[in-house]
Amino acid sequence: MAEVFKTTKRVEFRDTDAAGIMHFSTYFTYMEEAEHELLRSLGTSVIQHTGSETLSWPRVAATAEYQGAVHFEDLIEIEVRISRLGTRSVTYQHTFLLDAEPIASGTITAVCCCIDPEQALSSRDIPTQLRDQLTPYVDPTLAR
Amino acid sequence: MAEVFKTTKRVEFRDTDAAGIMHFSTYFTYMEEAEHELLRSLGTSVIQHTGSETLSWPRVAATAEYQGAVHFEDLIEIEVRISRLGTRSVTYQHTFLLDAEPIASGTITAVCCCIDPEQALSSRDIPTQLRDQLTPYVDPTLAR
Amino acid sequence: MAEVFKTTKRVEFRDTDAAGIMHFSTYFTYMEEAEHELLRSLGTSVIQHTGSETLSWPRVAATAEYQGAVHFEDLIEIEVRISRLGTRSVTYQHTFLLDAEPIASGTITAVCCCIDPEQALSSRDIPTQLRDQLTPYVDPTLAR
Amino acid sequence: MAEVFKTTKRVEFRDTDAAGIMHFSTYFTYMEEAEHELLRSLGTSVIQHTGSETLSWPRVAATAEYQGAVHFEDLIEIEVRISRLGTRSVTYQHTFLLDAEPIASGTITAVCCCIDPEQALSSRDIPTQLRDQLTPYVDPTLAR
Repeated sequence: MAEVFKTTKRVEFRDTDAAGIMHFSTYFTYMEEAEHELLRSLGTSVIQHTGSETLSWPRVAATAEYQGAVHFEDLIEIEVRISRLGTRSVTYQHTFLLDAEPIASGTITAVCCCIDPEQALSSRDIPTQLRDQLTPYVDPTLAR
Repeated sequence: MAEVFKTTKRVEFRDTDAAGIMHFSTYFTYMEEAEHELLRSLGTSVIQHTGSETLSWPRVAATAEYQGAVHFEDLIEIEVRISRLGTRSVTYQHTFLLDAEPIASGTITAVCCCIDPEQALSSRDIPTQLRDQLTPYVDPTLAR
Repeated sequence: MAEVFKTTKRVEFRDTDAAGIMHFSTYFTYMEEAEHELLRSLGTSVIQHTGSETLSWPRVAATAEYQGAVHFEDLIEIEVRISRLGTRSVTYQHTFLLDAEPIASGTITAVCCCIDPEQALSSRDIPTQLRDQLTPYVDPTLAR
Repeated sequence: MAEVFKTTKRVEFRDTDAAGIMHFSTYFTYMEEAEHELLRSLGTSVIQHTGSETLSWPRVAATAEYQGAVHFEDLIEIEVRISRLGTRSVTYQHTFLLDAEPIASGTITAVCCCIDPEQALSSRDIPTQLRDQLTPYVDPTLAR
């Protein structure tokens, strides 16, 4: 059974809007923060210096579906699973819960790339060690 | 043939990130700004006071796909079409172009709702006048 | 000797900019988050419902001075003191540290107000209990 | 008499908060956007490549005072003056108006620096041409 990375986040005032709820775009930044926290928990970072190269993870797709709303100071739980681990890309699946009720879900698909300010992005195979660390989070029931 | 709403937006410094490009979440706020601008061009607003009710458009879904990147001060063009106009919801389809090349696309699906701070959200039929104004932007080739 | 409220914050990717550092405006949102956290630690909130009124704290002034820069994933410490506790207003003094070195400081001055969507803001005396709770954080050496 | 750079900005939904007004931190990003627009109007940019160096303008101080509030879709006018033009730094003075009434003001002090990712920031004299272009905006009545 797949592992699930869990973190919590308190809704900040700057992330609310005049409708009185958290702005729909903020779910994407919270998804990214959860992804970065997962990577830190593995001892690495979304920006990784390996030998002469710097690897990072440009996004190629992001989605969100909203079932509810959250408000200032709500303490939300974010669960992160991996729905697809490709040779060079990963799709994170995020679930947002408030009081154990799902209020939103979403995905981020990122590609492992060498980033060099002097050159165009070029994709790379995910380093073996990181692949091994991410594999337990792959949930085969999420594959499409 | 469907009408297309076009607007431009210059990438602001606050919307860039340490990768040197516009943050992936900002595409969602720019999509929303283009949608609001479309509604203003029709003489209305995303928050509309009609008789005793206040109507607004909570989001139920949002997606983005990224083909390229944009940088500080880039002048990007945003095209807005409607891929689906339901009885109570609308799906906007956005295309981002830089120098006439597509660099990203995305959708926002919003539901027409009565918003009353004292009560839960409840959906409403899109007002007839607004429906008539949005209809020319419906592009049947985008329907799924 | 005055009490100091201390909290930590990890620099999020969305808060960096194309100069590779945390955007200067983010210090203000982090100051606000520290202030809100201080109020929560006292068992209250920046938005407080008291009897028939809702009290909140609109800002009348904010300042920041920058001595250094912080980067993505830096773990910064924020110290909060009160430089002035008036009858109806409070000035928070924030110090940002990275590895025990000060990198920025700033202030937020907020006024205790009754907020009623139907009416203009009107100021109120700070409730006695809250005043008593804030008093230990007043640092007389910061008064001007 | 000093020249004044004027621009307008419509309050975006993402910049509002649950108090129903524009978030106090957004004034700083709008001040920066006005500053960048002023520099573009002079044919330059806040990031300038000159010979082998890249010059930019890290902030050393920022302040704001709030006399009122603005709401979603308000069209605000921003006036930019220069209160101090030093050898290596400039202080911009911004005034925010809504319906010709001042609702906020603020300053940004920035230092002309050579930015080299491999090295620490080091300040530089403001290039002569840019100094000549900024001089008309210096308002001696604002000097302190």
